[in-house]
Amino acid sequence: MPPRTWTIVDSEAGVYLPQLDLNAADFAGDYVRGLRVTKRVLRGGLSDDVDVLELENGAVRLAVLPTRGMGIWRAWCGDVELGWRSPVRGPVNPKFVNLHEASGIGWLSGFDEWLCRCGLESNGAPEWDADGRLRYPLHGRIANLPAHRVEVVGDGQAGQLIARGTVDEARLFGRKLRLVSTIRMQSAVPGFAVTDEVTNLSSEPTDFELLYHINFGLPWLRPGASLVAPVAELAPRDPHSATDVAHWNSYGPEQPGLDEFVHFFKLAADRDGLTGVLLKTAEDRGVMLRYDARQLPCFTLWKCHQPAADGYVTGLEPGTNYPNVRSYEERQGRTARLEPGASRAFSLDFEVVTSRERMHAVEQEIAALAAGRSPRVFNAPQPGWSPEGDSK
Amino acid sequence: MPPRTWTIVDSEAGVYLPQLDLNAADFAGDYVRGLRVTKRVLRGGLSDDVDVLELENGAVRLAVLPTRGMGIWRAWCGDVELGWRSPVRGPVNPKFVNLHEASGIGWLSGFDEWLCRCGLESNGAPEWDADGRLRYPLHGRIANLPAHRVEVVGDGQAGQLIARGTVDEARLFGRKLRLVSTIRMQSAVPGFAVTDEVTNLSSEPTDFELLYHINFGLPWLRPGASLVAPVAELAPRDPHSATDVAHWNSYGPEQPGLDEFVHFFKLAADRDGLTGVLLKTAEDRGVMLRYDARQLPCFTLWKCHQPAADGYVTGLEPGTNYPNVRSYEERQGRTARLEPGASRAFSLDFEVVTSRERMHAVEQEIAALAAGRSPRVFNAPQPGWSPEGDSK
Amino acid sequence: MPPRTWTIVDSEAGVYLPQLDLNAADFAGDYVRGLRVTKRVLRGGLSDDVDVLELENGAVRLAVLPTRGMGIWRAWCGDVELGWRSPVRGPVNPKFVNLHEASGIGWLSGFDEWLCRCGLESNGAPEWDADGRLRYPLHGRIANLPAHRVEVVGDGQAGQLIARGTVDEARLFGRKLRLVSTIRMQSAVPGFAVTDEVTNLSSEPTDFELLYHINFGLPWLRPGASLVAPVAELAPRDPHSATDVAHWNSYGPEQPGLDEFVHFFKLAADRDGLTGVLLKTAEDRGVMLRYDARQLPCFTLWKCHQPAADGYVTGLEPGTNYPNVRSYEERQGRTARLEPGASRAFSLDFEVVTSRERMHAVEQEIAALAAGRSPRVFNAPQPGWSPEGDSK
Repeated sequence: MPPRTWTIVDSEAGVYLPQLDLNAADFAGDYVRGLRVTKRVLRGGLSDDVDVLELENGAVRLAVLPTRGMGIWRAWCGDVELGWRSPVRGPVNPKFVNLHEASGIGWLSGFDEWLCRCGLESNGAPEWDADGRLRYPLHGRIANLPAHRVEVVGDGQAGQLIARGTVDEARLFGRKLRLVSTIRMQSAVPGFAVTDEVTNLSSEPTDFELLYHINFGLPWLRPGASLVAPVAELAPRDPHSATDVAHWNSYGPEQPGLDEFVHFFKLAADRDGLTGVLLKTAEDRGVMLRYDARQLPCFTLWKCHQPAADGYVTGLEPGTNYPNVRSYEERQGRTARLEPGASRAFSLDFEVVTSRERMHAVEQEIAALAAGRSPRVFNAPQPGWSPEGDSK
Repeated sequence: MPPRTWTIVDSEAGVYLPQLDLNAADFAGDYVRGLRVTKRVLRGGLSDDVDVLELENGAVRLAVLPTRGMGIWRAWCGDVELGWRSPVRGPVNPKFVNLHEASGIGWLSGFDEWLCRCGLESNGAPEWDADGRLRYPLHGRIANLPAHRVEVVGDGQAGQLIARGTVDEARLFGRKLRLVSTIRMQSAVPGFAVTDEVTNLSSEPTDFELLYHINFGLPWLRPGASLVAPVAELAPRDPHSATDVAHWNSYGPEQPGLDEFVHFFKLAADRDGLTGVLLKTAEDRGVMLRYDARQLPCFTLWKCHQPAADGYVTGLEPGTNYPNVRSYEERQGRTARLEPGASRAFSLDFEVVTSRERMHAVEQEIAALAAGRSPRVFNAPQPGWSPEGDSK
Repeated sequence: MPPRTWTIVDSEAGVYLPQLDLNAADFAGDYVRGLRVTKRVLRGGLSDDVDVLELENGAVRLAVLPTRGMGIWRAWCGDVELGWRSPVRGPVNPKFVNLHEASGIGWLSGFDEWLCRCGLESNGAPEWDADGRLRYPLHGRIANLPAHRVEVVGDGQAGQLIARGTVDEARLFGRKLRLVSTIRMQSAVPGFAVTDEVTNLSSEPTDFELLYHINFGLPWLRPGASLVAPVAELAPRDPHSATDVAHWNSYGPEQPGLDEFVHFFKLAADRDGLTGVLLKTAEDRGVMLRYDARQLPCFTLWKCHQPAADGYVTGLEPGTNYPNVRSYEERQGRTARLEPGASRAFSLDFEVVTSRERMHAVEQEIAALAAGRSPRVFNAPQPGWSPEGDSK
């Protein structure tokens, strides 16, 4: 039987489904066990009118947010939850987020997802122009733009669920960028894949930035947790972060008022460009993230040791660039150019690791990527990596 | 039988109709053929929760936007569509528009209507105060304010449909301006009329600005399209626009990256002050706009030759003023003063022209307005017309 | 019978009741006469999607706004209405309010409640940092944040209705403050009580500001109206306000263009710290507000003599501080410190006075508070009270 498609949102066609509940019986085929799709609208509080699209494959459940640029609010696999507890309890409707408040960091008012995208015109630290006007607010607009087209495809023969959303970051006299995000799940597999395509809709060339902000809080960060990565090079972003370099891959106890540490990486990859990083707990649970380092050459690790009440959290952040101010990344040639009509694709593959066997296997896999080379670890910010590295 | 009235929104009375569908049978009388009114709410994407009120008279269909200050999103007459394709696909709910972003041009995030109003405190280019704070954002607030009262009147005896909406642009310690917009359609007539009344609700005198931004894209602007107008005087806004003066009334091919041309006009009018402009295609289709040049003494023509993907569009813009920064218009005496409680009315009449006979007639009509006088066309920006004209 | 609880909003649990209508029959017990609770959602205009929770006790009806930080839009007691007519007709959904517009006073776009809170990070005049960036917008965020948890408790045995709402003003890298507001009504009593608790959710100490902006317009302010208060000290905020000191407790005729008068007070209190102020009309109607002056040591009186169309209004404003720019209040030690996890409570008790007997009694009560001491009235702004007092 052919795959079936449900259109949930199609603004141009006037289609919108407030509620949807599909289960195995709706996906004809031999491999439908555990497949489920639900769609609902949250009401009240900061989540008012946020659409939540949930996908299940019998092993993993994802809560996807069309209202917030197809971000993923949380994911669950058995008793493992991917996510964190932000001081702002969301998901937050963009109508309550003012990206352009003068502080430049209004984006934080909506930030509580497990996975959100930063971009597309810019991501990273806010930047002001020579007249003191906010030009690039923190982390850009894409996470606070609603998808105007959302569909779900169930393929019972292939045992596959696909959700696809289209988000435009476009206006007259500005960039015209389109994100088409596709999330794929295979029946019973403890993982899922995100493939994004960014297209330049304009008749003029443009450049963009894209960074995936993938966030974990407690219980992930209890002492004993660590990040395993095939590090080729590491540089701390700034002098304060430099004090954490010796412990870059581990997490300390919660500490009130401790500033964030941010480290920038070049990761080793295999001949096809694939790399992977693993966040693991002391209890041998983990999330393995595989992606193409040619698509996303810059990896950033964000470590916030503030107590849980203030947001104890780490961010794994593969990107086209490092989250410095945009003008700095432009000068380093780290913005992504797109000719008129051209596209770039980005693929992320997540595996939730819950057994010692898989843990051993993925650690071996990362070790193989590193191939025995010892990483080059800088003890101080480096020129070309961050403004703080240039201003030494 | 007397006309019937349906109240669609009345915030003070707690009235709100999410859906409405009225047809000939609802409008008792002898001239009801083709009359239809529908009201619906869009959901999802940037259009989430936008009210759309459609009016049909058997010849023309209008999509009116109470949520966006009674703007008209699109109009259709047979196979003729009035409108354009903005890079932002709307209609956009004001909740997603930040008029006050530091760039001053946040208004563009919501701009995709065929007819929208710019004002009422100010319109035109953004202006900053001496402290560098944004004082007047591009084109003002009225297009992003929802109507708090909307009603439809069907008069089957007169064969008339009327929609009326009230939008307040008011707050403590600021201007208190009310717009009451009335749209009238006559059964089977290929046109419609917009009458707006702006009232000063305050006990103090005030001044305001109002400009109608009426926008046409493809297929209107294919080569051979032209604007026919009874030009008394024309001055380009700026040096770049001056390079287009020789071709002011025609449209060139799409050209990536070409900056906008803006021309300012004084139009000839008849003894009653009536004037008219016609946008016509190579195929003898057109829209004739008649209005009172005493109410709207300033006519602006906006020409954007960017390819369709970026917004190939022209704007016909009758206004109380030219869309310069507000302080400049104040100095030229081109803001509209209102005593406490006083009102000003503005009437626009649209005719969709689809036959050679009507085309010939309206061209004659415009020629008669010009009365054989040759227009005074300035080849450069002029003092008193635009800041660029004064700074020569 | 035990009290019954209805959860109206619980964002974390996914609970939201669009409509609710409870009456005496729902509150089992002996004292249920006149008790009623309704909940509805407004649609259209600026009030679109605003939740309104109405509480009645047989004597008073309150319209509470969970969508606007548990503000109280209006209250009614017989033919007495507590409230005013703002030039912006609300209640206004925060999605239409831009607190961060460059003027610093965007808050006014949503301001039309009878009682709203100003805070919690800051209240008072807007303040810019040394780079000219808006740091503290007028009156802060709390009145434009929706409650994420709202419940109603009906206790038919005690004859009591309770509404409780929780509003968080929190985000990563910012203050994490929680307001829990509890409104209590006793069957048939012409009054009600508001008890707020502000908690520091962070692991770090913080400080906050809270001011209650309680507003009365016509017919309250007709000539003959007056404020009765146990004044210990009074200082006008600025030189213009100084011209009103001799008439501080009365209201003049409507006067177009007259600037606001603002007076700052220290009020006398009894041994338990309780104080009270009374707004009374020439017709012997009034509202008596009792509160704990140790919780709210600063009382501000705001008098706006603009005609009704522009907002003829007075504000009774007990606060932790005076509504000066935040940095000034910090220097005076008038921000409220909270250790990690700590809370402060604030209680306001309102009595609607409709008889000569009660009027006489409450005037006696206030006279007793003043205890015959003559108030110290400054004729000019004072150092330590307002920036204008220091800059003399």
